[in-house]
Amino acid sequence: MIIIGERINGMFKDIARAIKDRDPVPVQEWARKQEHNGAHYLDINVGPSSPDAVGAMTWLVEVAQEASKLPLCLDSTKYDAIEAGLKICKQPAMINSVPAEMAKMERVFAMAAEYGAEVIGLAMNEEGIPKDADSRIALAAELVAVADGFGISPDMLYIDPLVLPCNVAQDHGTEVLRTLREIKLISDPAPKTVVGLSNVSQGTKNRELINRTFAVMAMANGLDAGIVDANDDELMEAIASARIIMNMDIYCDSYVDVFMQRNR
Amino acid sequence: MIIIGERINGMFKDIARAIKDRDPVPVQEWARKQEHNGAHYLDINVGPSSPDAVGAMTWLVEVAQEASKLPLCLDSTKYDAIEAGLKICKQPAMINSVPAEMAKMERVFAMAAEYGAEVIGLAMNEEGIPKDADSRIALAAELVAVADGFGISPDMLYIDPLVLPCNVAQDHGTEVLRTLREIKLISDPAPKTVVGLSNVSQGTKNRELINRTFAVMAMANGLDAGIVDANDDELMEAIASARIIMNMDIYCDSYVDVFMQRNR
Repeated sequence: MIIIGERINGMFKDIARAIKDRDPVPVQEWARKQEHNGAHYLDINVGPSSPDAVGAMTWLVEVAQEASKLPLCLDSTKYDAIEAGLKICKQPAMINSVPAEMAKMERVFAMAAEYGAEVIGLAMNEEGIPKDADSRIALAAELVAVADGFGISPDMLYIDPLVLPCNVAQDHGTEVLRTLREIKLISDPAPKTVVGLSNVSQGTKNRELINRTFAVMAMANGLDAGIVDANDDELMEAIASARIIMNMDIYCDSYVDVFMQRNR
Repeated sequence: MIIIGERINGMFKDIARAIKDRDPVPVQEWARKQEHNGAHYLDINVGPSSPDAVGAMTWLVEVAQEASKLPLCLDSTKYDAIEAGLKICKQPAMINSVPAEMAKMERVFAMAAEYGAEVIGLAMNEEGIPKDADSRIALAAELVAVADGFGISPDMLYIDPLVLPCNVAQDHGTEVLRTLREIKLISDPAPKTVVGLSNVSQGTKNRELINRTFAVMAMANGLDAGIVDANDDELMEAIASARIIMNMDIYCDSYVDVFMQRNR
């Protein structure tokens, strides 16, 4: 699984304060910590309360890139903010995210084509998140088709089937796992898949246990990437182990340390 | 996942000594401990070095049934020992195991039909364990077909695809996961599936981590049962969580305790 570190997000108090005060220290600390623990991308989200999303995104992208060489995942519903970030990214970024709604797809895929960015496409539209796998897959196919019209290959897309909390929508779990598996059949090359992992455990008592259990269950159904807490060691150990079982990394006794970029 | 507790096995020194001395205490302690931690069956294996397998199996079955009401999984390559156990089991047992070899299938399925026992069928034959999923599934279909000739319904069979250690046969992992999923398509009703979990981590440094990671990955592909260390709390917590995600148990905040039969 490709690890997209979730921690540089204005929903967290330390990042919200850092954005407000333009204090680079917490942002850069989290950039380094996530990279050290095995993240492959850094998610960058200005949070819901930022009055100037464009300015905040520009600043976050600049300071994050000073601290880490990782590519960025620009995470906002405000596409002007994403475009401002794309302009200054030093390497190809990921856009997080676009639903299967025509006006939004046209805006986002045009940006993605211009900047060579990957895109997270959400299996939802104006009507919300469907309950069953087939409807999610139909939305994924729509995202793939519209992206193709902009010259974007399916493997530049990460489809997020949108997992819901297991304590309120328990019947979605198996549908999401089936979606992950069957999405691989809709095109050649197939789109990639991603989940926002912490959603599955929202409001539960054993959040980390449920997160890491779902993560490897999803990997066993072909999940490619996750937006996760890269500093949850037990999660990262589970992901490293699932990569061994899926034959994605060669086994060695120290595979956990190798995956988490430690002791090198 | 149905938990078959692995611990009453003459491969463990305390059980080997208990069998030799006919000391019921260690056997009955393990019977109670495994039941308390959530086991649904107790595996009963006299071990490789027992000179009188029939006598040892008979004694183990008797003392285990004094301590626990759980059904038993009679585990031996000596079918006379299994038959001696079946005769005194107070409730329907599971036979562990038979490969897809005609003479052995005829002997075991005849016993299973006579005693109403479930059977673990191994995806191997005289030529050994196949490498790919398709060959494993072909052997499963053979087991289903021969069992049918003895009036045994496919859902009385647990097919074990035979997982190998991930440090020596790393390419088998995805084949085993695919086998688990596709076996469900060979008959209606489908056969059930089982793995001997600890095989996947044999000789590795992080045995428990690999065991629990593989267990939930297998569950995400439909695994029904596992022969496992029921007293590995982290494994049992992971299995309980996977059952929640698969919508097999209703979510409540204390689902781990409920699954592990604690605090009731």
